[in-house]
Amino acid sequence: MPEQLFSYEHLYKFTHSVFKSIGCSDEHAATATKTLLSADLRGIDSHGVARLSGYVRLWEAKRINATPNMQIVHETPSTATIDGDAGLGLVVAPYAMQIAIDKAKLAGTGWVAVSNSNHFGIAGYHAMMALQHDMIGMAMTNASALVAPTFSIEKMLGTNPIAVAIPANEQPAFVADFATTTAANGKLEILQRKNADTPTGWVQDKDGNPTHDAHALKTGGALLPLGSDREHGSHKGYALGSIVDIFSAVLSGASYGPWAPPFPAYIAMPENMPGKGLGHFFGAMRVDAFRPADEFKGHMDNWIARFRNAKPADGHDKVLIPGDPEREMNAIRLKEGIPLLESVADDLKNTGSKFGVDL
Amino acid sequence: MPEQLFSYEHLYKFTHSVFKSIGCSDEHAATATKTLLSADLRGIDSHGVARLSGYVRLWEAKRINATPNMQIVHETPSTATIDGDAGLGLVVAPYAMQIAIDKAKLAGTGWVAVSNSNHFGIAGYHAMMALQHDMIGMAMTNASALVAPTFSIEKMLGTNPIAVAIPANEQPAFVADFATTTAANGKLEILQRKNADTPTGWVQDKDGNPTHDAHALKTGGALLPLGSDREHGSHKGYALGSIVDIFSAVLSGASYGPWAPPFPAYIAMPENMPGKGLGHFFGAMRVDAFRPADEFKGHMDNWIARFRNAKPADGHDKVLIPGDPEREMNAIRLKEGIPLLESVADDLKNTGSKFGVDL
Repeated sequence: MPEQLFSYEHLYKFTHSVFKSIGCSDEHAATATKTLLSADLRGIDSHGVARLSGYVRLWEAKRINATPNMQIVHETPSTATIDGDAGLGLVVAPYAMQIAIDKAKLAGTGWVAVSNSNHFGIAGYHAMMALQHDMIGMAMTNASALVAPTFSIEKMLGTNPIAVAIPANEQPAFVADFATTTAANGKLEILQRKNADTPTGWVQDKDGNPTHDAHALKTGGALLPLGSDREHGSHKGYALGSIVDIFSAVLSGASYGPWAPPFPAYIAMPENMPGKGLGHFFGAMRVDAFRPADEFKGHMDNWIARFRNAKPADGHDKVLIPGDPEREMNAIRLKEGIPLLESVADDLKNTGSKFGVDL
Repeated sequence: MPEQLFSYEHLYKFTHSVFKSIGCSDEHAATATKTLLSADLRGIDSHGVARLSGYVRLWEAKRINATPNMQIVHETPSTATIDGDAGLGLVVAPYAMQIAIDKAKLAGTGWVAVSNSNHFGIAGYHAMMALQHDMIGMAMTNASALVAPTFSIEKMLGTNPIAVAIPANEQPAFVADFATTTAANGKLEILQRKNADTPTGWVQDKDGNPTHDAHALKTGGALLPLGSDREHGSHKGYALGSIVDIFSAVLSGASYGPWAPPFPAYIAMPENMPGKGLGHFFGAMRVDAFRPADEFKGHMDNWIARFRNAKPADGHDKVLIPGDPEREMNAIRLKEGIPLLESVADDLKNTGSKFGVDL
């Protein structure tokens, strides 16, 4: 498919202007832009600027509040619960993660549950905010239901990602960020656009049978939890996705499980929602709350070096550390630009034209 | 294979006597026995009394200290780091989890990293200690290296389990407890005893190729991370196992990755160990640190009921909630007894005879 290259600065200015046009403050627009484009830089194209028009449609549908009054509604020395006031998840999440970091400074760790939010971009961006403070960062979110539990044909969970960022000293940080499904929805979307088959174990059809149909979700099928089937541990992926749902939405007072609000504005909100909006959960742990930071980071260097040098299998140069591919992509795209599919660029142009903002 | 039934009380008395015989105090022997037998009750036979002779051999090899001086070596309001003084993991882990619970009472959450320990039984037992306090409990541990990272042929990680226990009100608690591999080592051992093949995706051979050989680990093969291969998300299982290793051992000062000490006493300790013994990590979060406990538990009832009633696939009665099978097994075995393979019963008799304790 044809692509166009855009510089980060170019996309930054455009995106910032669009967020300002829907009423965001200068500061919120900057936060939202940085968060959103971090996905494009890191190569997670499904979660980046390609979603900008989706956020705008949610704002048009009055499901996003561009001037939220985010508030701590409950707290203890190491915890806080935040009502995001239907703000952009791209703004609410960094606000909440900062509170987790501030709590950790005083109490050793900080844990923040968020309700009344929506899509927050990539989990890894928020988790990585902790790194500069010599803290381990964690971020997770629930999402609209696309995933069937083991033994079920009903979509009950989102792809519910988990991110964990761990600082090192000379080595780059360990940054894991993954959906709790066998394949992220973004990977499925790529195959849908190509009309290509999926590998076995990514999706099931409406009766719960294995299928290679990338469009199976449109005919009653579902994404599968990490592990794919019972014999390969799908009950573990189902448990992980459930834990993310409960921490993000049941702890915070957001809407959980099959009642999580959908991202596309044209899909009606679920009936009888048991809470407000999407939920997130963030954690920050000072490494020196456990042992001296230099000691910890020295051992992380040793851990990373040892794993990077694990004997590779035939056909592979080396073993990867979580975060390696995204960090390498980030460096390339900052320098060479961010490629957008023509269809995405056209969609951005249309979105900009609503507000007189040129791409 | 022939089995014998033993009552819980019978095995309790026997196991308690053996732990006292190696020098444990009455209280420590009781804690170790309860922890160990919780695995047999819950149906995790690989982690129960079948391992008793293994613990005794570690004591004989002077790798287990029956009278440990467990100490907090570092702490903040919400964290503690504990040196287990080479005590039984079965004793050190409940001690550490209690400190996590005590921290949570004051700070909202408590997080405890443990070094200088060894095998702690099932992770779920420790996580479940939080439930009676209306807290979410978490437990994880590293373990000796049996698992190859994605793209590698070298065994670098243990089966590194994660347990999360979440309280409800009328519904039984949500209790997830799983190895971060496609199949737990205990499941592999069952196939080894039967000389049966494994399903695809559980193990690889010495060159990193798929194999069905349940004995592959003895000829340079390895267990595979949850996800089995790259196409099915094994990089996610590898990341999860790594996070457990780092939280348990790098945060605490234990020995990590390929340097984790082995359970069998006849295997030499790794050279150049970067820390002391095995490591664990525990967490406790007061649910009322986020929202009123009654509210949270009411929504957990709703969550559990909704998921239990998700539409089942053909051939399945219902969708399971994590912890359902183990809770049901626990009730059956308390009433009807615990079946032990004859080889396990013989091994226990031999172990008891060293100390004049009859099975």
